[in-house]
Amino acid sequence: MSIDFDEARLRAVLDAFVVELPSWGFSNTGTRFRVFPQPGTPRDTLEKLDDAATVHRYTGAAPLVSLHIPWDRVDDYAALSAHATERGLRLGAINSNTFQDEDYRLGSLAHPDAAVRAKAMRHMQECCEIVAATGAHALKVWLGDGTNYPGQDDFRSRKHRLMDALRAVHDQLPEPARLLVEYKFYEPAFYHTDIQDWGMAMLLARHAGERGRVVVDLGHHAHGVNIEQIVAILLDEGVLGAFDLNDRKYGDDDLIAASVNPYQLFLIFNELAGAGLESSAAGACARGIAYMVDQAHNIEPKVPAMIRTVTTLQEHWLKACLVDRAALQAAQQAGDIVGANECLKDAYDTDVRPLLARWREARNLPAEPLRAYLASGEAEARAQARREGVPAGWA
Amino acid sequence: MSIDFDEARLRAVLDAFVVELPSWGFSNTGTRFRVFPQPGTPRDTLEKLDDAATVHRYTGAAPLVSLHIPWDRVDDYAALSAHATERGLRLGAINSNTFQDEDYRLGSLAHPDAAVRAKAMRHMQECCEIVAATGAHALKVWLGDGTNYPGQDDFRSRKHRLMDALRAVHDQLPEPARLLVEYKFYEPAFYHTDIQDWGMAMLLARHAGERGRVVVDLGHHAHGVNIEQIVAILLDEGVLGAFDLNDRKYGDDDLIAASVNPYQLFLIFNELAGAGLESSAAGACARGIAYMVDQAHNIEPKVPAMIRTVTTLQEHWLKACLVDRAALQAAQQAGDIVGANECLKDAYDTDVRPLLARWREARNLPAEPLRAYLASGEAEARAQARREGVPAGWA
Amino acid sequence: MSIDFDEARLRAVLDAFVVELPSWGFSNTGTRFRVFPQPGTPRDTLEKLDDAATVHRYTGAAPLVSLHIPWDRVDDYAALSAHATERGLRLGAINSNTFQDEDYRLGSLAHPDAAVRAKAMRHMQECCEIVAATGAHALKVWLGDGTNYPGQDDFRSRKHRLMDALRAVHDQLPEPARLLVEYKFYEPAFYHTDIQDWGMAMLLARHAGERGRVVVDLGHHAHGVNIEQIVAILLDEGVLGAFDLNDRKYGDDDLIAASVNPYQLFLIFNELAGAGLESSAAGACARGIAYMVDQAHNIEPKVPAMIRTVTTLQEHWLKACLVDRAALQAAQQAGDIVGANECLKDAYDTDVRPLLARWREARNLPAEPLRAYLASGEAEARAQARREGVPAGWA
Amino acid sequence: MSIDFDEARLRAVLDAFVVELPSWGFSNTGTRFRVFPQPGTPRDTLEKLDDAATVHRYTGAAPLVSLHIPWDRVDDYAALSAHATERGLRLGAINSNTFQDEDYRLGSLAHPDAAVRAKAMRHMQECCEIVAATGAHALKVWLGDGTNYPGQDDFRSRKHRLMDALRAVHDQLPEPARLLVEYKFYEPAFYHTDIQDWGMAMLLARHAGERGRVVVDLGHHAHGVNIEQIVAILLDEGVLGAFDLNDRKYGDDDLIAASVNPYQLFLIFNELAGAGLESSAAGACARGIAYMVDQAHNIEPKVPAMIRTVTTLQEHWLKACLVDRAALQAAQQAGDIVGANECLKDAYDTDVRPLLARWREARNLPAEPLRAYLASGEAEARAQARREGVPAGWA
Repeated sequence: MSIDFDEARLRAVLDAFVVELPSWGFSNTGTRFRVFPQPGTPRDTLEKLDDAATVHRYTGAAPLVSLHIPWDRVDDYAALSAHATERGLRLGAINSNTFQDEDYRLGSLAHPDAAVRAKAMRHMQECCEIVAATGAHALKVWLGDGTNYPGQDDFRSRKHRLMDALRAVHDQLPEPARLLVEYKFYEPAFYHTDIQDWGMAMLLARHAGERGRVVVDLGHHAHGVNIEQIVAILLDEGVLGAFDLNDRKYGDDDLIAASVNPYQLFLIFNELAGAGLESSAAGACARGIAYMVDQAHNIEPKVPAMIRTVTTLQEHWLKACLVDRAALQAAQQAGDIVGANECLKDAYDTDVRPLLARWREARNLPAEPLRAYLASGEAEARAQARREGVPAGWA
Repeated sequence: MSIDFDEARLRAVLDAFVVELPSWGFSNTGTRFRVFPQPGTPRDTLEKLDDAATVHRYTGAAPLVSLHIPWDRVDDYAALSAHATERGLRLGAINSNTFQDEDYRLGSLAHPDAAVRAKAMRHMQECCEIVAATGAHALKVWLGDGTNYPGQDDFRSRKHRLMDALRAVHDQLPEPARLLVEYKFYEPAFYHTDIQDWGMAMLLARHAGERGRVVVDLGHHAHGVNIEQIVAILLDEGVLGAFDLNDRKYGDDDLIAASVNPYQLFLIFNELAGAGLESSAAGACARGIAYMVDQAHNIEPKVPAMIRTVTTLQEHWLKACLVDRAALQAAQQAGDIVGANECLKDAYDTDVRPLLARWREARNLPAEPLRAYLASGEAEARAQARREGVPAGWA
Repeated sequence: MSIDFDEARLRAVLDAFVVELPSWGFSNTGTRFRVFPQPGTPRDTLEKLDDAATVHRYTGAAPLVSLHIPWDRVDDYAALSAHATERGLRLGAINSNTFQDEDYRLGSLAHPDAAVRAKAMRHMQECCEIVAATGAHALKVWLGDGTNYPGQDDFRSRKHRLMDALRAVHDQLPEPARLLVEYKFYEPAFYHTDIQDWGMAMLLARHAGERGRVVVDLGHHAHGVNIEQIVAILLDEGVLGAFDLNDRKYGDDDLIAASVNPYQLFLIFNELAGAGLESSAAGACARGIAYMVDQAHNIEPKVPAMIRTVTTLQEHWLKACLVDRAALQAAQQAGDIVGANECLKDAYDTDVRPLLARWREARNLPAEPLRAYLASGEAEARAQARREGVPAGWA
Repeated sequence: MSIDFDEARLRAVLDAFVVELPSWGFSNTGTRFRVFPQPGTPRDTLEKLDDAATVHRYTGAAPLVSLHIPWDRVDDYAALSAHATERGLRLGAINSNTFQDEDYRLGSLAHPDAAVRAKAMRHMQECCEIVAATGAHALKVWLGDGTNYPGQDDFRSRKHRLMDALRAVHDQLPEPARLLVEYKFYEPAFYHTDIQDWGMAMLLARHAGERGRVVVDLGHHAHGVNIEQIVAILLDEGVLGAFDLNDRKYGDDDLIAASVNPYQLFLIFNELAGAGLESSAAGACARGIAYMVDQAHNIEPKVPAMIRTVTTLQEHWLKACLVDRAALQAAQQAGDIVGANECLKDAYDTDVRPLLARWREARNLPAEPLRAYLASGEAEARAQARREGVPAGWA
């Protein structure tokens, strides 16, 4: 029942586990019905970085920030990098956006009209240039492409257009950056989505080239789908590249990670932590994963939500690292169903918060980051400082 | 296999079947990612009525228009009614909106703060006054109320607040208008919705008072839910009031009715058409149903989509009226599973379009309304006429 | 982060929390494809009670056993009760079975043929007599009634038959036993189930009479349905009677409770534990709930699975009793979304296993029941003792 | 609205469309709760062929019969083939069964124990020999392999075992027979299934060898999954091999094809009929598809259900062949969403039953096969002839 653990090993585990925050996670967000604005919302990319830096300052575990083009387009990416570096941050992946321009009503890279596809490709080229300018580790491509009605367009023609386009993007992408291909079950398209699941994303990522990888967003699956199995398959195929971490109960709800189904996050991390111990190709793949957050804090305050997200991710990662893998493997080999399952349950049931608190204190971090942040007065000061101007949104 | 039918009876069926269009179905709509504007979008409520009138002019089956407050708030409702009447229309249900104001971030009638609930009640009071001013047959209440995280608020406290509030609304509602209570599985709330299914809507509608009724929106259920069974239950309980017609494949996609699962619409109409023949309470309930449309034509042109919607609804209603009910009942009594099912299949497989064309010609309507509209040049003229100004949206 | 708790209070909580085991949970079970038999399966009802007694002996928390008629039909119910009493057990609810007789191909209480309905009613009468003979607290009715194809039977006629039948059953049921009405989304019927959700079960339970209550089986919902909200509603309506505890990932998988989604079980228990503190009608309802297990251990050994189930249920019940309700309510009133959610998370994240071990030792129970059982050699002895004869199954 | 069609072309379409019936579709089937036996159930494989022949005699469109080993194991496959030939039938695919033996409790080809895997491989070898003996076009492999609890076994280890095993099966399979790999979302395993979706099946089929193909069973997907898109992708990849046709509303319900969602079947056939016109690799793939039925007529009589299935498949195939592909492509290119969708709707809405009746009469088949069969007295005669002996089941 109780797991004896090597605290030094686990502190090293925590040192190595880093989360990548999305710049757009600090902008105002909402549903199709309403965006509820929040006080202190950043007004530009520099301020988004400031907010990410705040999260990192309290947690010590979120040193990377993803950018989104055009939302984070700036004139001087070197200055942007410097702004990040000064705050202990590094710029992470570059995210393309081909779903908000008038021309993309019927799609972008899969659009039936070659002129629209060419426009989308020019955007991808710009993103590749920003990858070069920022030293980003990846270009992440999520497309809104799809159709709303049967017959609206031809599945196979769209697939061909996508395959060609993503290969061309890969060719333009500066080494060693990866091309991260994201899949999504539905939304904004409601009859079919061109990259609807891991199988399609894998086909596209592999066809694109050797740096093609798949992104798993935890909210982008049909109900009941076993995501940890998909993670294991993609690891085994060496094609898993990154996560968009969040949680959901219904659709792509973009809630705080582990707020609805925490055990699922543990099971996913269990696959990654287990593989990461191996010298296999899957192990190498696991060690190269980018743990990105993709959440929309529509009604709750965003900085606290992000701090809570990072600490929750740490807790679940730590639990996954507590699994007694020798005992697990022995039980599996013996066909001991309940015993094997107990190996996971024992790790999951362990309260890792005291260990995390000790690690934080050793790193001069507050033992309880969220509580410390809420008591700091920073939120009020920021709201005051940013009360003028136009808050950043998704458009 | 072939069904002999009495064309005179079926023409009377078509004469009696009327569809209610939503004023907001002609405004610009979209997803949380993007609203793609359309040419010729109405700029005010009068122009929304004009568009609804166009749909009615081509189909002869959509003489009612629902309004939405505050989107359709005007100074002079008598003038609005007159505008409608001049175009062969009548004003239909009044829809409340307590999901787009800043104060409603945590809910409206179920909000933990009494001041917010009072504000929402004042809105309901205004809506009741507009019901009186327009002679509307109903006040339709769809709430966005719910929570995004476990613990955010207390389920039972919210239920009590809602029960009290809806009873108070019912008390204010001028007779004989009905209070239509709408349920929805999820969105915009992502952990729980206060009125999440028919069971909860029925509890609330009955507690509100004798004019309380339930609205069934075809896109507001979990996957797999048997909607036609819910319709039958609500008919049997005498508490079904109206439909929000549309179709969906994933979430609340608000696609054109019957565009994804046409047989489901037929099965729903089969319950209504069957009950409507009875002298029972269920029969009276069925004959009093309002057939409202609630669709969001995000990327396809709205007037054609609405014309297509109305004609599709007519087709499925007609098929439902073709079911040989004596044969069906005999097969059911005999336990003849395949035979009973064939009674439905025979009606569904019948091509009713020629009969509809003959009915249209007899009523001086174009035999093929969509084709006639597209050939008319009206769309282009309207786009030209409305190229200035601010197009109406959902906000 | 850490919750200070009153251990004496929590020990009383554990003393009061009792689980009811199903006799059929020790019989051989399987899927439609295969039943995998297990060594040591009981050969009659007495041996099922022996197995339940074993679970209770190790856990101290499962003193009740539900029976299933006809699987557990015996000549002498007094002798059966005595057998239970000698082992520290009490007989619990009586479960009817109208889904396995040839006559029930098209249903039982809702069957179109009055003769079949009468036969099903005679079975219910027998069950009522067994309730009287055993002093059972309830008659639990789960029906397989439904249809496989559209049109196969009439929804409303079946509803009327069911309403009449369940009222008649209620009339025959000796006081103070309750009539527990169970709903299920689907299976064995695949087009519609007559009691498909809580709304329908509530209508039927209330129409049956004042002792009518609803049973919530955790595996009987569509994907995404918020079960804890349903629990809260049924508590508030005073009509919740019992649970069938288990877990599922896809359909009605009947897996070990909390093995797929442990947080959901916690959230359900949170509603019950919270209400149970109140002097309201909901509080009384909560304190009268029967916590039944309904699982099918198709491939894992059954006694260990049941021991694990009981201890897991205790863990989650204890976590639910750790929630700081004053803090939760304050956060809810203040609209502090993250703070309110943290109240639940703090309780859930607490490792309650040490406290449970202390409680067990104080009650002369093994600190780790599953481990103690596995080390006891009982399983091997039982398999040896029962190697002859016909193992019990579901038929 | 009305589609002018070339009846000669459509008759040729019907001549070419052949359905493969499963021998086990005539055996007694049921749910985990109950198998309801039917009168006249075949007692051996010869009688199953007789029933399939009856279906073919009335429909003229079901000349192929799949066998299932060991259910259809016989001593003399030449005699079996002769029995089929005499009745106008041909033997179709051989189906393996590694889910009903005691040893397969934890899996077969993916089992953790090498001895069990070897046993499963011997079964596959026997199946390959039967392929040789019968001239079967394919070996179809559906596995029940999976786990019921997190941790029970290792995803990646199981994947490796499966990849190795299926490649070895492919090596043993006599040319030109195909290896058909079937995926399934869940059941009988309830936590994970080793071949859970098209992506995994494609990985395995391709790794197995050049004759590896994927089977799409219409009941084996999560809710909402766009099956017609999967069909298009698999066609485009040249790896689609066969269908298991049926319909479902909830799980793998195995209902009569098109009885729940007929439009979905039309949309799937639309992909196949469209591709089949092309000279592309996708076209060749489409023309090589095996249209197998996999249904379980638990409560309705099986021969009528199969006749109805075959005629329904013909109807939907014919509708798919009515789509005006030039108009569809033009609308797609023009971004005419409603117009493109109408191309499908126009074909679907057409009543093809009169054309089918004319085709039947030209082929000396009854115009209404189901009605003719029911009137023939064959069912009663068969029930009488087979009233002794042991009816065939799934075990």
